[in-house]
Amino acid sequence: MNLTKKELWQRFQKYYSEFPSLGLSIDLSRMNFPEDYFEMMEPRIQKAFAAMMDLERGVIANPDENRMVGHYWLRNPALAPSPEIRQEIQRTISNIKSFASEVHNGVVRGARGRFRHVLLIGIGGSALGPQFVSRALGHPKTDRMDVYFLDNTDPDGMDKALSQIDSEFGETLCLVISKSGGTKETRNGMLEAKAAYERAGLDFGKHAVAVTGADSELDRYARENGWQRRFPMWDWVGGRTSVMSAVGLLPAALQGVEIDLLLSGARTCDAITRENNVKTNPSVQLSLAWYYSGNGKGVKDMVILPYKDRLELFSRYLQQLIMESIGKELDLDGNVVHQGIAVYGNKGSTDQHAYIQQLRDGLNNFFVTFIEVLKDRDNQSLFVEPNVTSGDYLNGFRLGTRSALYEKHRESITITFEEVSAFSVGALIALYERAVGYYASMININAYHQPGVEAGKRTADDIIDLQLKVLKLLSDNTGQARTIAQIAQQLDGEYDMESMFKICEHLSANRSGSVIKMPGESPFRATYTKI
Amino acid sequence: MNLTKKELWQRFQKYYSEFPSLGLSIDLSRMNFPEDYFEMMEPRIQKAFAAMMDLERGVIANPDENRMVGHYWLRNPALAPSPEIRQEIQRTISNIKSFASEVHNGVVRGARGRFRHVLLIGIGGSALGPQFVSRALGHPKTDRMDVYFLDNTDPDGMDKALSQIDSEFGETLCLVISKSGGTKETRNGMLEAKAAYERAGLDFGKHAVAVTGADSELDRYARENGWQRRFPMWDWVGGRTSVMSAVGLLPAALQGVEIDLLLSGARTCDAITRENNVKTNPSVQLSLAWYYSGNGKGVKDMVILPYKDRLELFSRYLQQLIMESIGKELDLDGNVVHQGIAVYGNKGSTDQHAYIQQLRDGLNNFFVTFIEVLKDRDNQSLFVEPNVTSGDYLNGFRLGTRSALYEKHRESITITFEEVSAFSVGALIALYERAVGYYASMININAYHQPGVEAGKRTADDIIDLQLKVLKLLSDNTGQARTIAQIAQQLDGEYDMESMFKICEHLSANRSGSVIKMPGESPFRATYTKI
Repeated sequence: MNLTKKELWQRFQKYYSEFPSLGLSIDLSRMNFPEDYFEMMEPRIQKAFAAMMDLERGVIANPDENRMVGHYWLRNPALAPSPEIRQEIQRTISNIKSFASEVHNGVVRGARGRFRHVLLIGIGGSALGPQFVSRALGHPKTDRMDVYFLDNTDPDGMDKALSQIDSEFGETLCLVISKSGGTKETRNGMLEAKAAYERAGLDFGKHAVAVTGADSELDRYARENGWQRRFPMWDWVGGRTSVMSAVGLLPAALQGVEIDLLLSGARTCDAITRENNVKTNPSVQLSLAWYYSGNGKGVKDMVILPYKDRLELFSRYLQQLIMESIGKELDLDGNVVHQGIAVYGNKGSTDQHAYIQQLRDGLNNFFVTFIEVLKDRDNQSLFVEPNVTSGDYLNGFRLGTRSALYEKHRESITITFEEVSAFSVGALIALYERAVGYYASMININAYHQPGVEAGKRTADDIIDLQLKVLKLLSDNTGQARTIAQIAQQLDGEYDMESMFKICEHLSANRSGSVIKMPGESPFRATYTKI
Repeated sequence: MNLTKKELWQRFQKYYSEFPSLGLSIDLSRMNFPEDYFEMMEPRIQKAFAAMMDLERGVIANPDENRMVGHYWLRNPALAPSPEIRQEIQRTISNIKSFASEVHNGVVRGARGRFRHVLLIGIGGSALGPQFVSRALGHPKTDRMDVYFLDNTDPDGMDKALSQIDSEFGETLCLVISKSGGTKETRNGMLEAKAAYERAGLDFGKHAVAVTGADSELDRYARENGWQRRFPMWDWVGGRTSVMSAVGLLPAALQGVEIDLLLSGARTCDAITRENNVKTNPSVQLSLAWYYSGNGKGVKDMVILPYKDRLELFSRYLQQLIMESIGKELDLDGNVVHQGIAVYGNKGSTDQHAYIQQLRDGLNNFFVTFIEVLKDRDNQSLFVEPNVTSGDYLNGFRLGTRSALYEKHRESITITFEEVSAFSVGALIALYERAVGYYASMININAYHQPGVEAGKRTADDIIDLQLKVLKLLSDNTGQARTIAQIAQQLDGEYDMESMFKICEHLSANRSGSVIKMPGESPFRATYTKI
């Protein structure tokens, strides 16, 4: 049963917490957990705090991969478990700043002049953080450099992105970011970009910077080809928490973001969310709300609705941070648990016009996280009606939706920031990083590995191998038309005819001068010929 | 239990259908419905076909709003139920073409010369379709005009978007799109844009075009202020299916999309998906797969993964089309059903690096729709390895992921297009529009209304009213500091103190020269003063 407005005000005052040093408040009042919920959860909470303390001290918090988990050190190197790590963090930040300054001053420059653009090539953790920060903090009028992204291995997508740079490759600094240094999408993007630089008569290496693990494939390639600069990644930073390493700091600094403020926001948030006190710890509050909502099993989707265009990519950032961290088959004791929380959302009030219909009336299989930003804009607003601004409407739509959902027993969290700034974006990232860590402890899983990702990559390699075999067979018999069944028959082994079919369809669509398809009586009787 | 590769090939051949006239194929083989599933569903299928036939004939298919549902007529006016409607569709398409041509030729021009940019102001159905089409079919090198969007009432977001146009408002044609003509976000965006034109010394109306219902608030405003042109919207086209009306066709034509091909793709798809035959009807196949996956109750989320950057916004387009159509409290007989299907996704292989971990290992609460595009790019590809292209990898990652998911009993559909073109985008939209219609009939709901959307808007209006009351109270007593409790006490009625608190926080953050906050002992003891 819904509470009256008066009761809601009581509950709001109880579950609304302000954190003035972060410019942040959090409101759990519209999550309908019982009054004794926090007490009931105390054993799990204490387990989560203990695990987090160990992690920050440098214990092997990612046991499957035998790794420390050090993203909190990135913004507070004093916490790092060894002087070597501490110094390496500090040195890297300092190198990023001086490099960015050399680029801005034109000391480091492209073949056609001062670098004005950044082309960032990366995927997953090496793109989502930089994209989120770039969109949240950039502005066309004030950015030092504008940033383009290649975050896929789609040829047409790369053509389109590269054509935006057009004739200005000689003023474009290319960052190639891959923690492992062997990510195929990023390698492909790099080779396609390199070809574009070379078509423009430019030496790619003089315009290229690598961010990668020491002595990775990419690191060696960059060294051997005389790239402009190399920045390190470390095995104790996961891709999805790498935005405060060189992965995120380098593009941000080039764009003109004050990275010290980003780090300071995260560090300040860390200090608060480290505290063993539910009432004064917004990360633990978030994780408890998630646990309550999904019964510790993620049965409800997390809908992220920032009412601020700048934060539109936050839900994509969280898709990775949360789903890759929490979506696990086994718990830490090896039990099959199939954990996870599905995350989606774009921005309010825009999304109200897309799917608030379902949220209010349809399946109750979600909870919403509203993100409010108090400051509307830099300048004064015009009135769109007497005494009413566009921002008042944005506020009104958010409050109205929260209340319309509540009427229908749909739950929500509200996070409020005073403004979008480098400091608050740093705090927001840190807030969620730690909430994910706590939640993972509460449900007893390893938040820091991703064992399920490898399978898809391995299978993809198998497809590439199979394609090479098919191509070889056709090439060894040029001019001879073969059906899928005939190709399969001639290749030894227990072949996957379905994949062979899809491979031949793709080959014939793209190597029209080379692999020819002739339709058959059915789709599966078509023949393929190498000419 | 999983099938062997040989059994999979058998199943694939059974459930893979090609539609050569659409350049489309659809593969349901990795949805594990039993062999007799289509037969079992026959009564529901026949009901869906009958309802669709009625709808296309002009029966009141949206009973709650007493409206016909006519989006299929937009691409085949011969089907329209009256000569008046037929002529109005034809006349509008013809007017769009001639207007676009006048703009391109410079016959219609801005105060500073030929129109080179489009600024589209709209939200929901008046933005998602245009955004999807613009991204899917545009190219920086070949577009006739580039398109900017204002799709929210976020002041800072509008500042950022408008600052991209910078000093070129005199060459920017502004389209204001609102079916009802009263959408506040769009009205606010229009007023903010108007102010920007006026700051540049320009007459806004000479640069503005309205797309809206006859005699709506916007229509009257445009007429009274001498706007450049007005295009109609009709009550028999829903916002979420309006992309083939002036809403979508006008910006597409201005950008340089061949709208005849878009319409022709949709019309051709309509002809195929109208056929009362499951085996040869891809829309009914899709709707059956959805029904199977979610047990007719949407218990599984729909993850949309186009392996093509151009189609990245398709999941957002589908969020509206599907969730607003299907997410309903009541069925057509008035029973409470809380229907819906949650839709999310961005693009592959990028999203593999974000959340394939959860999809493969975690919660099995979803099914994936892979969208494959056979043609990689316009030009020849370079080899990133001997005989392997970037596009081969994209294909490999998709196939690898599909297979890695299948191993773990995660189901998927694959839709394949030969290429991304105006024709295929038209077909894709039509494919899903009709699938949604069939699915809605199968679960006995009205897909064409949105009763839950109004509640949030009404509540938002209440918030604006409350804000005006609070402001009046403070203005009538300038210089006097009041707590929320005191403000509530002085305003008559059963007030919502929580909203009052949020309103005062927002006011004091944005009218710093006017409403002053003084902190108190607790967040709720702060005072607010009008000066």
